[in-house]
Amino acid sequence: MNKQYEAAVIGGGIIGSAIAYYLAKEKIDTAVFDGGRIGEKTTSAAAGMLGAHSESIGDFSVFFPFARTSQRAYAALKDELYEQSGVDIGYKKGGILKLAYTEEDQKNLEPLLVQPTVQWLESEDVIYMEKEVSPDALGAAYIPDDVSVLPNRTCESFAKSAQALGASIFENHPVYSIEKQAGNYIIHTAQGDVEAKYVVVATGVLSNSLFKHLVLSERLSPVKGESLIVRADKPLLKHTLFHDSCYIVPRNNGTLVIGATMVENDWSDTVSLEGIQFLIEKAKTMMPAAAQLTIDRVIAGLRPGTFDGRPFIGRHPEDKHILVACGHYRNGILLAPATGQMIRDFILEKDIPSEWIEAFRVDRRQLVMA
Amino acid sequence: MNKQYEAAVIGGGIIGSAIAYYLAKEKIDTAVFDGGRIGEKTTSAAAGMLGAHSESIGDFSVFFPFARTSQRAYAALKDELYEQSGVDIGYKKGGILKLAYTEEDQKNLEPLLVQPTVQWLESEDVIYMEKEVSPDALGAAYIPDDVSVLPNRTCESFAKSAQALGASIFENHPVYSIEKQAGNYIIHTAQGDVEAKYVVVATGVLSNSLFKHLVLSERLSPVKGESLIVRADKPLLKHTLFHDSCYIVPRNNGTLVIGATMVENDWSDTVSLEGIQFLIEKAKTMMPAAAQLTIDRVIAGLRPGTFDGRPFIGRHPEDKHILVACGHYRNGILLAPATGQMIRDFILEKDIPSEWIEAFRVDRRQLVMA
Amino acid sequence: MNKQYEAAVIGGGIIGSAIAYYLAKEKIDTAVFDGGRIGEKTTSAAAGMLGAHSESIGDFSVFFPFARTSQRAYAALKDELYEQSGVDIGYKKGGILKLAYTEEDQKNLEPLLVQPTVQWLESEDVIYMEKEVSPDALGAAYIPDDVSVLPNRTCESFAKSAQALGASIFENHPVYSIEKQAGNYIIHTAQGDVEAKYVVVATGVLSNSLFKHLVLSERLSPVKGESLIVRADKPLLKHTLFHDSCYIVPRNNGTLVIGATMVENDWSDTVSLEGIQFLIEKAKTMMPAAAQLTIDRVIAGLRPGTFDGRPFIGRHPEDKHILVACGHYRNGILLAPATGQMIRDFILEKDIPSEWIEAFRVDRRQLVMA
Amino acid sequence: MNKQYEAAVIGGGIIGSAIAYYLAKEKIDTAVFDGGRIGEKTTSAAAGMLGAHSESIGDFSVFFPFARTSQRAYAALKDELYEQSGVDIGYKKGGILKLAYTEEDQKNLEPLLVQPTVQWLESEDVIYMEKEVSPDALGAAYIPDDVSVLPNRTCESFAKSAQALGASIFENHPVYSIEKQAGNYIIHTAQGDVEAKYVVVATGVLSNSLFKHLVLSERLSPVKGESLIVRADKPLLKHTLFHDSCYIVPRNNGTLVIGATMVENDWSDTVSLEGIQFLIEKAKTMMPAAAQLTIDRVIAGLRPGTFDGRPFIGRHPEDKHILVACGHYRNGILLAPATGQMIRDFILEKDIPSEWIEAFRVDRRQLVMA
Repeated sequence: MNKQYEAAVIGGGIIGSAIAYYLAKEKIDTAVFDGGRIGEKTTSAAAGMLGAHSESIGDFSVFFPFARTSQRAYAALKDELYEQSGVDIGYKKGGILKLAYTEEDQKNLEPLLVQPTVQWLESEDVIYMEKEVSPDALGAAYIPDDVSVLPNRTCESFAKSAQALGASIFENHPVYSIEKQAGNYIIHTAQGDVEAKYVVVATGVLSNSLFKHLVLSERLSPVKGESLIVRADKPLLKHTLFHDSCYIVPRNNGTLVIGATMVENDWSDTVSLEGIQFLIEKAKTMMPAAAQLTIDRVIAGLRPGTFDGRPFIGRHPEDKHILVACGHYRNGILLAPATGQMIRDFILEKDIPSEWIEAFRVDRRQLVMA
Repeated sequence: MNKQYEAAVIGGGIIGSAIAYYLAKEKIDTAVFDGGRIGEKTTSAAAGMLGAHSESIGDFSVFFPFARTSQRAYAALKDELYEQSGVDIGYKKGGILKLAYTEEDQKNLEPLLVQPTVQWLESEDVIYMEKEVSPDALGAAYIPDDVSVLPNRTCESFAKSAQALGASIFENHPVYSIEKQAGNYIIHTAQGDVEAKYVVVATGVLSNSLFKHLVLSERLSPVKGESLIVRADKPLLKHTLFHDSCYIVPRNNGTLVIGATMVENDWSDTVSLEGIQFLIEKAKTMMPAAAQLTIDRVIAGLRPGTFDGRPFIGRHPEDKHILVACGHYRNGILLAPATGQMIRDFILEKDIPSEWIEAFRVDRRQLVMA
Repeated sequence: MNKQYEAAVIGGGIIGSAIAYYLAKEKIDTAVFDGGRIGEKTTSAAAGMLGAHSESIGDFSVFFPFARTSQRAYAALKDELYEQSGVDIGYKKGGILKLAYTEEDQKNLEPLLVQPTVQWLESEDVIYMEKEVSPDALGAAYIPDDVSVLPNRTCESFAKSAQALGASIFENHPVYSIEKQAGNYIIHTAQGDVEAKYVVVATGVLSNSLFKHLVLSERLSPVKGESLIVRADKPLLKHTLFHDSCYIVPRNNGTLVIGATMVENDWSDTVSLEGIQFLIEKAKTMMPAAAQLTIDRVIAGLRPGTFDGRPFIGRHPEDKHILVACGHYRNGILLAPATGQMIRDFILEKDIPSEWIEAFRVDRRQLVMA
Repeated sequence: MNKQYEAAVIGGGIIGSAIAYYLAKEKIDTAVFDGGRIGEKTTSAAAGMLGAHSESIGDFSVFFPFARTSQRAYAALKDELYEQSGVDIGYKKGGILKLAYTEEDQKNLEPLLVQPTVQWLESEDVIYMEKEVSPDALGAAYIPDDVSVLPNRTCESFAKSAQALGASIFENHPVYSIEKQAGNYIIHTAQGDVEAKYVVVATGVLSNSLFKHLVLSERLSPVKGESLIVRADKPLLKHTLFHDSCYIVPRNNGTLVIGATMVENDWSDTVSLEGIQFLIEKAKTMMPAAAQLTIDRVIAGLRPGTFDGRPFIGRHPEDKHILVACGHYRNGILLAPATGQMIRDFILEKDIPSEWIEAFRVDRRQLVMA
């Protein structure tokens, strides 16, 4: 293990891997430390929807432009990453049909429908597009740009591309502590110590211990998401169906993902029978034919929740060489590119939109309270 | 491949493997031909309950004594097979609590309760024995003798024990046809021909093609059973719960099986979302805490159904050197030893209770009709 | 099950699925019958190299133009199939480096090197392209057009595209026999009978029983291929390495395939320790760093071998409504499109190059002998 | 989560689970905290040999009596644990044949052969017992008492038995730090804080961070072990074969384990191709027929190595309420009962053989040096 790096990224999920990619592109000597294997935890349990629109409900002022920047980045990344790494990210067009069953549902879609990239479809148009959708739906917001990718492939593609550009990836290297020493940081890992000029904390819901260690007062809380990977015996869906936080995503590998539950403060990564029951009910509401889908496997992961639903992306309040990038909740895959770019810009001291800096800074709660 | 055998058993599921064991014990030179791997189909999808009592409802005259003989055989087999093969069959004591929720349920249990081996327990006694049982249960028939085994281990143990006693097992040997030649049978397989003096058809629900080929007019129809293999995070059940054809079986490997659906005329071995939903509902009815169980995997298999629910075990009506042993429906694991003994006795021309011969003969429908 | 089809394809591996696709495109009402699940046997054990050049050694006159036609078809199919089915076939550029270690190796490459699409690279150029290749290699034939796909995805994409165009796919429908009746064929399956005007036998190495049934004198013999699916902890290879019938194929899903053994007359689909040992040796010869690759899983499948190494594609000698498409040996994935097109052209009575008809007809051995 | 316990065991592998069992039996209110799932790491990669004799070479004075005590405990535990938990530990008789190929091998076996429980067998007697053993073996030390168990079942059985006796098991609870407060310990976990009177560190090779935190100067170093789980198509071995640190263990579930490599300072849990190659070579040396075994899956785990090869079992030198039980290297399964008993006796302040206290104390190196 090379003993000195310019940047040490702690955590090799989708966020840490994307950061490493953007840093390596700038020839910043970067190392990623993951306690297990790249992308094996929360990342691998994601559905991979790039739902810039569908996830922005209630936050079109800040979240949406940030998410949209990230979503757009993927259009170029899909070829760029493949070229670098040889690993295809499974980018799949089609977009999302966000279904409405009640007038209240329709009302909730209104802020979405004012976007020029979103279109209202009446029930018959929905069924024309996807004939298995429940006839009970009154209609849907159709969002062609909310495409999807395969999450663990995307993570692997970021990581291998970063390696191809010179970054080092250390798996099975849990980080115990970080120590300031003569202006640099000593990072203590199970396999020895390394030194770095910048440290990026990208450990998702497992960041609490490092937060405490770095005297950051916020904490992340897990919101477990359980999903079903299923198969159909014939072509069934071309678009993702979405309703009431749940979805059915057709993937480019022939499977569909039905997700996801929201189990608060559960640190396990098992899938319970009541979770499965909930998901099957939801799927049948969207598409009655879901009853005949066959199960392939189940997945579960811990979304890193924050007090206000927005991620922490920014500098440590007391030390600008320590950066934080975690708390992406339901949107880690979507926000990875914009997060990687933002961390890169902090390190290179480039301009970053001030509203993003404010919205995502780790001490925003205290600032508001003060 | 040795070209001549005294007995050729077609099918290496639990029935064919048990038959091979009993023949090999008598030093009959036996070969088993399976189209795939030993026990990989219906056998591997069974729960392994030895429900001599619980499955006899409506047939205490014939089915019960036969099933009881078989159940009792396992008590000795568990050591005998382990000694021969080194493979443990996972015999687990505890027995079954057959729950009653309504007066009708209770009435249905009456024929069972007259058995000296069955005891009625009031609700509070049931909950004393198993504290997670639903308080809605009025009580239960307690059947200590209806223990369980691990089905694929039992099948493997029969097969390896048969080998240890001299039998040959040929996996990946689908049998295409059987031809009579000079008093013996030529068995045509994908890998060449062999000759045998006796032929035993033990191919479960896949027997239709051989039945047609052997001019037997009966047909087997599949009743697909889907089950869930689940885990609990603490010790939960010591006894199998049973209600309304469904059950929760605690196994000696730490898992529990929730089974099983009954899907008629479905030849697939996939598990559908509606099947899963049904099983979770049933499990919660028996034990509300089932909602928190976590899923390990799902299994499905095709039970071989017959016109009257009883297996076909006996000689071909026209040719006593051709024997049939299939159609065991929900009870293949339970009935394997008694079936193996009965086929052995047909070949050795030993006495067999005449009511069993009559009840299980393959041409019984025509005889009744004639 | 609809009872009448224009064409019944027996076998839903890569060959049967491709045929169904080409027939469905012509609006021929087609049904595929598979004994298990689509693509689960030999197809799923293939590496997916489209080795038109690398596999043509010794047969540039007939095999090569046929294989090359098929290989070229994939360039368009990759988008066409994705559009129809939503399933990506995992097309991966890069091509093959066919390595030479001895003068004899070099000599064997000569017929390949006269092709304008193949280029000789000296050792240093090989290592410049792929720095982990063994320095013992004298050089390599570089074949950019011999790209690769993901076999089971390709099969699924063909099958789902065929369905999207109107074809029916029946899984778990083993076919027992075929009967001529009033000009049409009755196909007897485990789940009932159907009628068809044309029958296509595409059951790979399992065709022997149907061949016998259809009074075809040829037989297919299995050549088992075992492979390892492995992972590297960093980007390792961009091109497939090939030497002495073995290869290391980097896939677009981040894994590499090391294949394959050639075990004659073995009908099992297990992977033996000696097979694994052989593959690791071979891989290390091509790339010493292979020692540090980590195993993901193993696969095995039965290549359908023919007496002369060429497939059987053509009409039954006695009955032009019965077509045969099997025996593709090491090249099922590569040859699927051209085979599908050829079967389509037989049915539509379109022109087919006569040298292909002669080279692949099922009774070619007798014709030569006569 | 109950906030106060008498004893907190950190780590739920075989060692922590066994300790919890012995404490719970004494009605000590015990909680186990595991960062992931019970027994999923090193424990699940063990072969399960209870090699009290075969592993004592070079340490018959201290290690042997301790290991022998532990081995003997299993004879009773197998029924006791099953009774409590319903989970069978897979105890398998047969014993070990420790093979000798050279005179040097024979010489190395001498200290073993003076034990009354070990017997020398000449080559022909070995082959009489196990006919597939290589005829190159000069003979073997036969150790009937060195039986085996299934490691993860044993761990689960200890943990569930502990629960049945009142212990609490918390999975997915990584422990960050331990703090002394008013005579008790506050244990900080990802899911909150708990208080305990006694703390037991049983985190195997992952103990380094806690060791540092608790100001213990020793460190554990990983020695990765890779193994193959294989199957035979007929009964093959009744006894474990052992030679030169490698072994073939027949299990009571029908599989065999070929193990294990010794890769120093490798923290990954993947299985490399060179590891596999090494194991196959070793297996063939012991039993040429191993070449035909078929692979089921591979496993790997990190043995916790110590400076002198003996475990750390004892009190913290500065604080007798902190106990350590880690560093069991190759012998975690074997030593779990004796370790659990010893930790119990420390807490209950019962007598413990002083030579065990001295041999296993965590500060033994400094004492010697001092």
